[in-house]
Amino acid sequence: MGKIVKREIDYAKWYTSIITEADLIDYGLAKGTLIFKPYGWQIWTNIKKYFTLELEKVNTQECCLPLMIPYSEFLKESKHVEGFNPELYKVSHIGNKKLEDELVVRPTSEIAFCYYFKKNVNSYNDLPCILNQWCNVFRVEKNTRPFLRTCEFFWQEQHAVFSNEKEAVDFAFTMIDMYKNFVKNFLSIHVLVGEKTENERFAGADKTLTIEAMMPDGQALQSATSHYLGTNFSKSFDIKYQNKNNEFDFVHQTSAGLSTRIIGAIIMSHSDDNGLVLPFKIAPIQFAVVSTSDADINKVNLIIGTLNKFRTAKHIVEKSIGLKLQENEIKGIPFQIIVGKKELETNSITIYRRDLKIKTTIKIDEFSLEYINKLIESYENNLYMNSKNRLENNIVSANNIDEFKKGLDNKKFILAYWSGSAEDEKKLKELTGATPRCYASDKQSLDNQNCFFTNKPNAKLVYFARSY
Amino acid sequence: MGKIVKREIDYAKWYTSIITEADLIDYGLAKGTLIFKPYGWQIWTNIKKYFTLELEKVNTQECCLPLMIPYSEFLKESKHVEGFNPELYKVSHIGNKKLEDELVVRPTSEIAFCYYFKKNVNSYNDLPCILNQWCNVFRVEKNTRPFLRTCEFFWQEQHAVFSNEKEAVDFAFTMIDMYKNFVKNFLSIHVLVGEKTENERFAGADKTLTIEAMMPDGQALQSATSHYLGTNFSKSFDIKYQNKNNEFDFVHQTSAGLSTRIIGAIIMSHSDDNGLVLPFKIAPIQFAVVSTSDADINKVNLIIGTLNKFRTAKHIVEKSIGLKLQENEIKGIPFQIIVGKKELETNSITIYRRDLKIKTTIKIDEFSLEYINKLIESYENNLYMNSKNRLENNIVSANNIDEFKKGLDNKKFILAYWSGSAEDEKKLKELTGATPRCYASDKQSLDNQNCFFTNKPNAKLVYFARSY
Repeated sequence: MGKIVKREIDYAKWYTSIITEADLIDYGLAKGTLIFKPYGWQIWTNIKKYFTLELEKVNTQECCLPLMIPYSEFLKESKHVEGFNPELYKVSHIGNKKLEDELVVRPTSEIAFCYYFKKNVNSYNDLPCILNQWCNVFRVEKNTRPFLRTCEFFWQEQHAVFSNEKEAVDFAFTMIDMYKNFVKNFLSIHVLVGEKTENERFAGADKTLTIEAMMPDGQALQSATSHYLGTNFSKSFDIKYQNKNNEFDFVHQTSAGLSTRIIGAIIMSHSDDNGLVLPFKIAPIQFAVVSTSDADINKVNLIIGTLNKFRTAKHIVEKSIGLKLQENEIKGIPFQIIVGKKELETNSITIYRRDLKIKTTIKIDEFSLEYINKLIESYENNLYMNSKNRLENNIVSANNIDEFKKGLDNKKFILAYWSGSAEDEKKLKELTGATPRCYASDKQSLDNQNCFFTNKPNAKLVYFARSY
Repeated sequence: MGKIVKREIDYAKWYTSIITEADLIDYGLAKGTLIFKPYGWQIWTNIKKYFTLELEKVNTQECCLPLMIPYSEFLKESKHVEGFNPELYKVSHIGNKKLEDELVVRPTSEIAFCYYFKKNVNSYNDLPCILNQWCNVFRVEKNTRPFLRTCEFFWQEQHAVFSNEKEAVDFAFTMIDMYKNFVKNFLSIHVLVGEKTENERFAGADKTLTIEAMMPDGQALQSATSHYLGTNFSKSFDIKYQNKNNEFDFVHQTSAGLSTRIIGAIIMSHSDDNGLVLPFKIAPIQFAVVSTSDADINKVNLIIGTLNKFRTAKHIVEKSIGLKLQENEIKGIPFQIIVGKKELETNSITIYRRDLKIKTTIKIDEFSLEYINKLIESYENNLYMNSKNRLENNIVSANNIDEFKKGLDNKKFILAYWSGSAEDEKKLKELTGATPRCYASDKQSLDNQNCFFTNKPNAKLVYFARSY
């Protein structure tokens, strides 16, 4: 256990020590890249598996588009290129040949999907067209941190086109709700949901919706985003369809993504000074059955049989099982079923629960699927309620910059009336380190309020925080 | 149907017309890249799903390594860099910064895995270490053809290290057998299995094993490879482990891969002038139930219920079902279940079988799971036997260059005694277009034979062909 740095002593080292000790990643040879080791990759694979099923529910089709995009194409949507230009990886040579038109290694795939839509969408019968890919993307980052900010990262990016604004905007909201529910039901994370201010929008979007989680240090972690792109891209790339009146209209576009940074959110939301704590549904190993080599193998197999619909590991150790229990503790295995000498004598098992760090001894007979399902429900509920309470108990209102700063120093999210400009947001960030996370869609803004920072009129309630 | 170019008239256009009309891909914006459309991507997704289960059987762990490799690292294994240098995509700028050490976009990941093994393998307890990743790789190609030869392609690459030569070599053979069985059982393709000549080995390998399929035009398609890398990489990257005697030894390494070019092999092996024909197990849609809108919906649902363990599509058409049948024909759906007016009157269904292009009408009662399983078995067997017969009936022996050329002109594989050098292989290729595909592991080479081409002694039987 001594390998995990205590969170109170050094938050950043606590985080990286968990990642290393739980065997999730190594650092890659190229700056800002990660090697996903099997245990870490399995977490992402599980997220992918379950979220793919959610995407299918809204008729998303999986596809795969090229990694490289000619730079000349990238230049077509002006705001998009302005936003991403400083972050691009560019291929200038292939083989020994210098390229006239350099290739951009995708930082996101709006442009590749525009090309797809232009080729494949002709009439209203082709709409909506909802596509998704799971892939890697590349953005230059100065300060990288595993999962949270890396130059290469993995995500799903869903891109869709619709025949009108209403359908597209509704779909953008459908997607942000999907993310909110997914992180709740599969990752036990509670989030704020809302729209970004203009300055914080995705480069090329008319509207950006976000889910924002709160980490134990009071910082926000943007966990997924859903964008309404309007006709910005369809006009730049000339994506038209023939409507029912045989006229040509521009399509209305959306995009939405969830990335490997969510693994950072999982780690920070749930873990403790003993190591990683994983949400049950995406844990690579959900149950570990730990027994000594002299244990009754039939009883061990009976227990494993009961667990056959879960991802279960069987650990048989020579004498002391303490070391194995500690190893599994660091790796965040939700439940360990201990079948030691003491247990065998009384025909019982001891269940160690990772979140509460408590042991319960029960008779083997009691270990039914019903019992197990209740355990799991309680585990997931406990993780989620911790996340929910953290967020809900740590929001304060601010009417002036002093209250704002004090709130941040106390590791709070700030709720405040805001009508500042992009320039004002920049000033506020320089002064406090905080940015607007989203408009408070869960609160009713009063009329005729002034901005707490600029005193400008027509202010709306906005959540602010320092962020990852 | 007119959309598919007849194979006899233009083989190359037949192939590309199938790919386009079956909606598998579009061409990407960057040269030599493919857009995998949903139907095409689903084929690869199914291959991935089933082959992952095979990999698990030999204790392979899935992981994910960075796409970019610093060029300085790439230079460490001399044969490897010599082989791949002319084919590399290089990133020279990130953001506005010129890189001193350029980044190579992986053409394969031996070097990234060497770095992994060096960090994670310390003692004999860590061996064998068997890893795999599913990813994209990049190699410059002048003449590209969809699936068969593209600049970006997708594959699984398995990399493993062992404590000694025997284990590693045995594992390389285990993997080539796995490929052989997988393409037989899941893709209905018959292949030759054998070792490559020295000149045809993977850059950096001591031994390359291959499976080679025969396409209907008599050309060979290398469908997967498995390499024994010896200690070439472990010496260059200093990958040592502590053995049981507490001494440090270099690890023995293997790698093995199956790529999206196998989709090209599937298409050419099975398709006909009506369009795509897909192996049952990896077909995105295995059964299409096609009925008219006035059909008894309960009966249609009954049929779909019987098919619930298969990937089944339900197509309800307004009046004539002929158009939908043709569309499904082009897309290679193995079985279409027709529930038309005629069928309903007699309480029957008509089954259209894609491979044989025959219709069978049976009573609904007869359509049991047992009946279906027999159908599938017969379908798969027919596809496989066609592939097997094509290969086995089209191999000829050659004792001199004239026989060799004549065989090639007749679209045959050539079996001939060979002991030529790399230079001789080059000459033979210039003269005939053919290359050694592999040593004939299924034939006993006689002693004291001379090479058919150079007359050099100690020749062994080798299969030759023109190839994709």
